[in-house]
Amino acid sequence: MQLGTTAVYVISLMTVLLALVYAIYLVVWVKKQKNENKTIERIAGLIRDGANTFMRKEYAILAAFAGVVAVLIFLFLPKPVWQESMDKNLTMAISYIAGTIFSAIAGKIGIMVAALANARCAEAATHGIKPSFLIGFRGGAVMGLMVVGSCLLGVMGVLYFTNDASMLLGFSFGASSLALFAKAGGGIFTKTADVSADLAGKVELGIPEDDPRNPAVIADNVGDNVGDVAGMGADLFDSNIASMTAALVMATSIDGKILGVRSIMVIIYAALGLLASIIGIYTAKIGEHGSPTKALNNSTYFTTGIFLVLTAIATLLFEGFSWRIWAASAVGLFVGVIIGLATNYFTDDNAPIVKKVAHASKSGPAFTILSGVSYGFMSVLPAMVGIAISALAAYKLCDPMGPGYAMYGISMSAVGMLSIVGMIISNDAYGPIVDNARGLAEMGGLGEEAIRVADELDSAGNTVKAVTKGFAISAAGLTVISLLGAFMSEVNTLLEEMGRAAEKLVGFDIMNPTVFFGIIIGAAIPAVFSAMLILGVDKNAQRMIAEIHRQFKEIVGLAEGKPGVEPDYNRCIDIATTGALKELIPAGLFAIVATLVVGVIGGVNAIGGFLLGNIISGILLALFMSNAGGLWDNGKKYIEAGNEGGKGSDAHKAAVIGDTVGDPFKDTAGPSINTQITVVSLVASLVASLFINFHLF
Amino acid sequence: MQLGTTAVYVISLMTVLLALVYAIYLVVWVKKQKNENKTIERIAGLIRDGANTFMRKEYAILAAFAGVVAVLIFLFLPKPVWQESMDKNLTMAISYIAGTIFSAIAGKIGIMVAALANARCAEAATHGIKPSFLIGFRGGAVMGLMVVGSCLLGVMGVLYFTNDASMLLGFSFGASSLALFAKAGGGIFTKTADVSADLAGKVELGIPEDDPRNPAVIADNVGDNVGDVAGMGADLFDSNIASMTAALVMATSIDGKILGVRSIMVIIYAALGLLASIIGIYTAKIGEHGSPTKALNNSTYFTTGIFLVLTAIATLLFEGFSWRIWAASAVGLFVGVIIGLATNYFTDDNAPIVKKVAHASKSGPAFTILSGVSYGFMSVLPAMVGIAISALAAYKLCDPMGPGYAMYGISMSAVGMLSIVGMIISNDAYGPIVDNARGLAEMGGLGEEAIRVADELDSAGNTVKAVTKGFAISAAGLTVISLLGAFMSEVNTLLEEMGRAAEKLVGFDIMNPTVFFGIIIGAAIPAVFSAMLILGVDKNAQRMIAEIHRQFKEIVGLAEGKPGVEPDYNRCIDIATTGALKELIPAGLFAIVATLVVGVIGGVNAIGGFLLGNIISGILLALFMSNAGGLWDNGKKYIEAGNEGGKGSDAHKAAVIGDTVGDPFKDTAGPSINTQITVVSLVASLVASLFINFHLF
Repeated sequence: MQLGTTAVYVISLMTVLLALVYAIYLVVWVKKQKNENKTIERIAGLIRDGANTFMRKEYAILAAFAGVVAVLIFLFLPKPVWQESMDKNLTMAISYIAGTIFSAIAGKIGIMVAALANARCAEAATHGIKPSFLIGFRGGAVMGLMVVGSCLLGVMGVLYFTNDASMLLGFSFGASSLALFAKAGGGIFTKTADVSADLAGKVELGIPEDDPRNPAVIADNVGDNVGDVAGMGADLFDSNIASMTAALVMATSIDGKILGVRSIMVIIYAALGLLASIIGIYTAKIGEHGSPTKALNNSTYFTTGIFLVLTAIATLLFEGFSWRIWAASAVGLFVGVIIGLATNYFTDDNAPIVKKVAHASKSGPAFTILSGVSYGFMSVLPAMVGIAISALAAYKLCDPMGPGYAMYGISMSAVGMLSIVGMIISNDAYGPIVDNARGLAEMGGLGEEAIRVADELDSAGNTVKAVTKGFAISAAGLTVISLLGAFMSEVNTLLEEMGRAAEKLVGFDIMNPTVFFGIIIGAAIPAVFSAMLILGVDKNAQRMIAEIHRQFKEIVGLAEGKPGVEPDYNRCIDIATTGALKELIPAGLFAIVATLVVGVIGGVNAIGGFLLGNIISGILLALFMSNAGGLWDNGKKYIEAGNEGGKGSDAHKAAVIGDTVGDPFKDTAGPSINTQITVVSLVASLVASLFINFHLF
Repeated sequence: MQLGTTAVYVISLMTVLLALVYAIYLVVWVKKQKNENKTIERIAGLIRDGANTFMRKEYAILAAFAGVVAVLIFLFLPKPVWQESMDKNLTMAISYIAGTIFSAIAGKIGIMVAALANARCAEAATHGIKPSFLIGFRGGAVMGLMVVGSCLLGVMGVLYFTNDASMLLGFSFGASSLALFAKAGGGIFTKTADVSADLAGKVELGIPEDDPRNPAVIADNVGDNVGDVAGMGADLFDSNIASMTAALVMATSIDGKILGVRSIMVIIYAALGLLASIIGIYTAKIGEHGSPTKALNNSTYFTTGIFLVLTAIATLLFEGFSWRIWAASAVGLFVGVIIGLATNYFTDDNAPIVKKVAHASKSGPAFTILSGVSYGFMSVLPAMVGIAISALAAYKLCDPMGPGYAMYGISMSAVGMLSIVGMIISNDAYGPIVDNARGLAEMGGLGEEAIRVADELDSAGNTVKAVTKGFAISAAGLTVISLLGAFMSEVNTLLEEMGRAAEKLVGFDIMNPTVFFGIIIGAAIPAVFSAMLILGVDKNAQRMIAEIHRQFKEIVGLAEGKPGVEPDYNRCIDIATTGALKELIPAGLFAIVATLVVGVIGGVNAIGGFLLGNIISGILLALFMSNAGGLWDNGKKYIEAGNEGGKGSDAHKAAVIGDTVGDPFKDTAGPSINTQITVVSLVASLVASLFINFHLF
């Protein structure tokens, strides 16, 4: 059967529609659940308002930033506006803005749903694990469906209106800009609030966690939403768009036209991935006394299976679909699952490594840190071997198909890894919802059994989060490899247009010192970028702690807990917001400016190397920081569950220090590196013509 | 003027002779200094014996290991013995053994001199800074002169007896094998002893540091010698040999014959570097109340200047010497100095960064760790930019000279950076001598003024050590780049011999997924290798702590300090020794086996990528760990000097935790990564013919 362009549009839009309808159904279902506790309602309202404050401020700054970038794009990209008709530049600028808007909407919806679901999830916990789990899971699923649906919709829209695959680079760059703000900014926000609430509240003033007298306590809860829900959604939206963009740019260059059979395959695979996620979400269930971890993992595996079957059927049915490419994406997906399991081994508190770190904590905090760093370093091996194997396998499978197919195969392997991203986002968004629910159950006085249920749901969220994070980083790793391919395609297309086909790149040779120059500098960037974010959390926390001190000094009756006296929660949220965005901008600019400097010094060869160095050290550090952070977090939880001396023991104190170190590792720096790599890769592709025409060496 | 082969041999041997004579003069001078304090003499004797125990055991294991490797080399390298006349294989095996022996001798001499100098340096401290400084410095200088002298002697010997530059690979591999044992094994030993002495003594039993009742206290002092003196000497011996080997292999391939003008240039530069170091050591001085840091740094800068002048004169005088190559090595040297200064900025306690980390410690240990990790990450940037610039500059300078010159230029840049290695080793070996002297001054009761003098000398040692470490890592970075070039030369030479010239490599393309496969896996190796070493320290420390507990329980009167009752120091030294070697072997084997597996899977292309990935992530992690470790160490010292609350404050407790984390970073894992990279690079070159003839993909 032959698939025409119209059929592809119809199929993908039908899938998007199905996803949206199902998401609306889930929203209605969640809304129908009981929500009667007044205390919970009030606190949930404060959290919701705080999240909105952050989002409003973030989006205001982003709008200004995006405006400036859009003007720059209009003036210079893909070529200076005075060299070419301005149509193309205008389209690029509009695509860019569309990318930011789509991503912003996805984030906004996530926040909205999380706010809807958390209070209801807490109340349902009084009736046992089954109803509470379903609310948390379906709340998260709305996010998953919306993100992936709008992703596919956006890509199809850009193709439909521009009829030019390279415009996807602009769209993707828009999504990345937003992801940088959402993920890194949200990451700084959440850890600022977390750290200062703990330090000023628990340590200095000796008041319990989540005590309403603490001015930072609402900011802390807001942080879970803006960092984990909105940030994570924007991040995976970005990775997903980037992987489709890379695949479509290369597909177009193989097909020699837009929406040829290779491009169609990319889109159909993405649509089938979304369909598989819908089925997976629909069938997810848990027994009265079932394990939420198992329920979440089973739905992931089930989705994986469905995707493989659906794409196999598509490959059978449709003309021009190739089994080799199917196999490449299957390898990607399979490796993704293996990497997830390996991550689990290093971060799950039922696995031996977490126990070892908890045990080491008995000798003091230095050993918590040393063992966590060591196992964090070790944990990079399975993921990196997995990425290496899927790249090699995709190459070997697809290279015989002709020139250009090897890189296309690798990009399809990334598309395969990200195919079930709808399911992954669902699981990921489940985490902060049940985490919030746990806090609300405690603050709302829902009783011990409800807190126990919420605790169990929360613990499953942590475990699953570690797995999906490993998955996300590895998928991003494969994606950026294909972005490197997309960069080369883009350079070659430009050179051809300039009539300089003789200069076309065939690759980037390590032994070429210009390439090498780029590699070495590119490798240093993620380290410096991470450092700037971590120090940003630190600086911002200092400001917030000063504010907490001020409030306790100036607000009469606050410290004593006089009824009716409330702290000024909003000031804290304001400080965290302003500070987060202030600390983020230099880090983002640093990465972008470094790219421009290296390109101007060494031209496209140096940039090829720069991207490679950036990818390599970025993947290494992101895996290390995410896994070490997860390990410390779960190590602390394991001790709190009564092991190695339990809560309050010296081992526990050491584990708390480990957890504090791990927090900005796993929630600020680690996951932001992905975005940094994508931003840098897209900037390189966008500015390629500058680097071709002007460089010093 | 034309330089003949004979002239080159004469010049280099004369320089070696001069170095040896001067070293002997210094030994005699140090021996003549006063050494009369009985307590000091007794403790120094215990330390000397302990160091000898370690070295004996280490050398015994090394001899067995080297024996096995030598047999394997004889059987398989450069080609299976049944394919080729056995002469070449035998020569390679002998070169290998010679490499281990030369390096072992250098290490042994260092230990001997350090043991001679430390007690005398302590006693001289009672007469002020001038005499004490001179003893420490001249003791270290013996090590510097011996290491560099034997390096040049060994290289000339191999060339003279084998008349084949590729045999240097075997010699260099021998030196690396030993460096792996000495540096990584010594690193595990020294931190095992340090950590367990502190934990069991200070923390658990509440006895002061350096208390003779603590069974681990002598092991701790021994550790300074075996880790810092012997280990560091072996490490720099290895780097120096490796840089000369890489340069000579490429020079031979350009010249088309052994000891052509390019090779002669390498040797003359090395000889002039040694001469410059001799002059620098001879002229080093300090005033009655001078600053030892300044004295050490001035002698480094002075040596640098002399080297540049001497090589410029040589370039003027000798036919075929090129100004472009002179400039390449000058750039290397210049960048080395800049990197050293940048390292200093991040680790010196007079610079702002250390103060910031000390200040952050006031908020608790988590902030000590977070800020140290952040600045450690940032500190990689100047060094990596420096390496990138010197590689690019060397390339641009030398590439116009003809094919092969670009890589040769980079290797000469590394030779330039390492030219003043004699001076660097002198400064580096000075550190542990004065460190030991400080302990001896305290244990020998030499009075407060002597301790103050020793403290000042020790602090200068720490500062200078950070600088030379940055220098050493960067030089190793450039060296391994040239080893990558040497690997490609070696592969091409082999292919030509096999009559498969058509398959000759022209480079390693990043976009070739086989290369990419290697890059990703290569990048993971240093992380896992470091983790294994750090965990090794941890495991070994647990064993030793158990032994300390046993002794305090079983030896009657020990805890009370009954006169005449002594702990069993040797048991502790035994445990540290056996454990260190036991923990080291899996880490070393892991790196070697990974190289073989990647080569067997992906052939020479995968190995090219593997080496690159290994170099990139290796340099990144080595710089990070060394600098973060130095930063924490000096942060603690800064607080102990009375800042941020001083000794005993909460900030101090936090800083001590930072220092404990930093210890295995900077003294075990960080500096061992260099050696790991060199070993892997040499294994790849040696086994190249296997990878050419057999690989799966």
